[in-house]
Amino acid sequence: MKKFEIKASDKQSSARYGIIHTPHGSIETPAFAPVASQGTVKGLLHSQLESIGAQLLLVNSYHLFLRPGVEIIEKLGRVHSYISWQKPILSDSGGFQIYSLSPLVKVRQEGVEFSSHLDGKKIFLTPENVIDIQMRLGSDIIMVLDYFIPFPSTEEKIKEAVQLTSLWAQRSKAHFNQYSTSQHLWGISQGSTNWNLRKQSIEDLLEFGFDGYALGGLGIGEPKSQLMEILEKTDSLLPREKPRYLMGMGYVSDILEAVERGIDLFDCVLPTRNARTGTLFTSKGKISIKNQKYALDKNPIDEECTCYTCQNFSRAYLRHLYERQEINSAILNTIHNLHFYLDIFKKIRQAIQSNSFLQLKYSKINKNKEE
Amino acid sequence: MKKFEIKASDKQSSARYGIIHTPHGSIETPAFAPVASQGTVKGLLHSQLESIGAQLLLVNSYHLFLRPGVEIIEKLGRVHSYISWQKPILSDSGGFQIYSLSPLVKVRQEGVEFSSHLDGKKIFLTPENVIDIQMRLGSDIIMVLDYFIPFPSTEEKIKEAVQLTSLWAQRSKAHFNQYSTSQHLWGISQGSTNWNLRKQSIEDLLEFGFDGYALGGLGIGEPKSQLMEILEKTDSLLPREKPRYLMGMGYVSDILEAVERGIDLFDCVLPTRNARTGTLFTSKGKISIKNQKYALDKNPIDEECTCYTCQNFSRAYLRHLYERQEINSAILNTIHNLHFYLDIFKKIRQAIQSNSFLQLKYSKINKNKEE
Repeated sequence: MKKFEIKASDKQSSARYGIIHTPHGSIETPAFAPVASQGTVKGLLHSQLESIGAQLLLVNSYHLFLRPGVEIIEKLGRVHSYISWQKPILSDSGGFQIYSLSPLVKVRQEGVEFSSHLDGKKIFLTPENVIDIQMRLGSDIIMVLDYFIPFPSTEEKIKEAVQLTSLWAQRSKAHFNQYSTSQHLWGISQGSTNWNLRKQSIEDLLEFGFDGYALGGLGIGEPKSQLMEILEKTDSLLPREKPRYLMGMGYVSDILEAVERGIDLFDCVLPTRNARTGTLFTSKGKISIKNQKYALDKNPIDEECTCYTCQNFSRAYLRHLYERQEINSAILNTIHNLHFYLDIFKKIRQAIQSNSFLQLKYSKINKNKEE
Repeated sequence: MKKFEIKASDKQSSARYGIIHTPHGSIETPAFAPVASQGTVKGLLHSQLESIGAQLLLVNSYHLFLRPGVEIIEKLGRVHSYISWQKPILSDSGGFQIYSLSPLVKVRQEGVEFSSHLDGKKIFLTPENVIDIQMRLGSDIIMVLDYFIPFPSTEEKIKEAVQLTSLWAQRSKAHFNQYSTSQHLWGISQGSTNWNLRKQSIEDLLEFGFDGYALGGLGIGEPKSQLMEILEKTDSLLPREKPRYLMGMGYVSDILEAVERGIDLFDCVLPTRNARTGTLFTSKGKISIKNQKYALDKNPIDEECTCYTCQNFSRAYLRHLYERQEINSAILNTIHNLHFYLDIFKKIRQAIQSNSFLQLKYSKINKNKEE
């Protein structure tokens, strides 16, 4: 079976409706992957995730590698069985976490040495053993190890990141080829907002050949116009028949712009993290539930919303739960925010199929001024 | 309609199966009230509570009076509407909280003056306004203000507590009589484990007449044998046709002994609080999920359990969630522990109806050595 099929294409943009096929079922795209770094979406049970339409989860190799450890997960039947989630799972390679969480990172051609952010223990990871770790986890979509750099970085630094990322991607692909599997291996491009280097990075990945192509190192503070330029140029460079993944990008307006430019997959902690700090998305923009003005507000978070939280609870009660630091505050807010995101993706997929994506985009962007 | 009916009585003990009728529906007894002090059971959504068989919730007048305040709850349609729970609600009077949480408590005949444990603000509550607060909340079962004392206390102190509790109970009843309502007013006896004083307290309450009779000031460190003696003597003293409530008592073995001695209603934070600290009840005794030995344990918490947690997750995964301090650890553990409690109460009610209560009691007590 093909690993990705395009089922419909928007006539006025590069947006497409497709299906990613994985060993644990298919994912309709454009899709949003809720983040379950430790094998759990903070505040939401799997049954609740399924009922609001989550199609896949993103787990984090770095976190699971450190704790509970790959051996334990392998012995307990690999990651789907361990966390009891039978739908697709994408595992992040850990590149981002190594560079953002660990002290004492030393990058060499061979791989990356770093100290665990938990106990300082020295760990050496290579592109090859990052593949092995994810194979042992049993992820459906495996991401290569890349060399993540912050924004802004010097041209020299970006060049170094692209070269090493390409070298590692090639070795990742060669190593993955030793396995016989229907799991996916996706490449990650670097290059910051420097188009020459981003282009080089993508062309290298295309040469090695991957089941999907991710854009890494974006959404970390670069100007919106530069991001859009990269997305547009990338859209022309990437083959249409492979899925594309914009890593870590979470604002609704960015997501809509990226879908217009042919992106198929997204992940972000924004809806879940915001839920826990009381920031809730509505069809009329976001609100902060801790605001005193909601203390007597009988209305649901969003009158248009069909989630369990909005069907049952007032802003006044949700504010009370937030102020009392009750666990149910995090739960009810997370149900709402993730439902809000997954609902937008459902609408995006419907709009692409009915050639009304741009209308949807404009109506949503005007309503959601969350940046 | 009668407020309480006995539907079946155990032939070998004082255990009885009954129904409490309230404005928001009926409660089959013996019953367990999950504690929702702030209007929410920590870690469990109302829909989950209903699906595991919760018949009523206990909310705390003291907490709700301080925050968000009675006015807000009243304006939002009273407590059932505010918290969106349409089944019966019992509100505790706050007696226990005033004496256990507040600094600077001054008890006078007129009422009790104390400082809010939140901001030190001086508050004066009388038996009358404690009734008014609960009427404004709209609770189905209203508890009188009592004078709670610790164990052990001197005979003089116990006597003082009984006298004041009786005086307040009388005033509570007189004040409640001014309302025309099908809500319940239940009295609370004090007297520690001193039978003469406990007897006095109960006889006073009986003279004033309440819809139900609670035993307060027990389960706070007194020897088990003294508790049992009080329960047995109380059983003979109380009229059979009124429901009886042993406040705050949570060990399964104590609950079974108390049911045998005619108690109908219980509440306790034990199953929910233990869940959050990783102590889980099983049909073979309790376990601490943080124990390293569960890191590779594929089994559910309890193989005999039918709850969502046990049907889906291994001890290994639950240990991982606990160790990572994930919100879902509290949620999944709470589902299990409360299901465990509510399931025992279901079995108790069935056993009384089939005259096999004592068999159930011995089988459970032998298995549950949790004290």
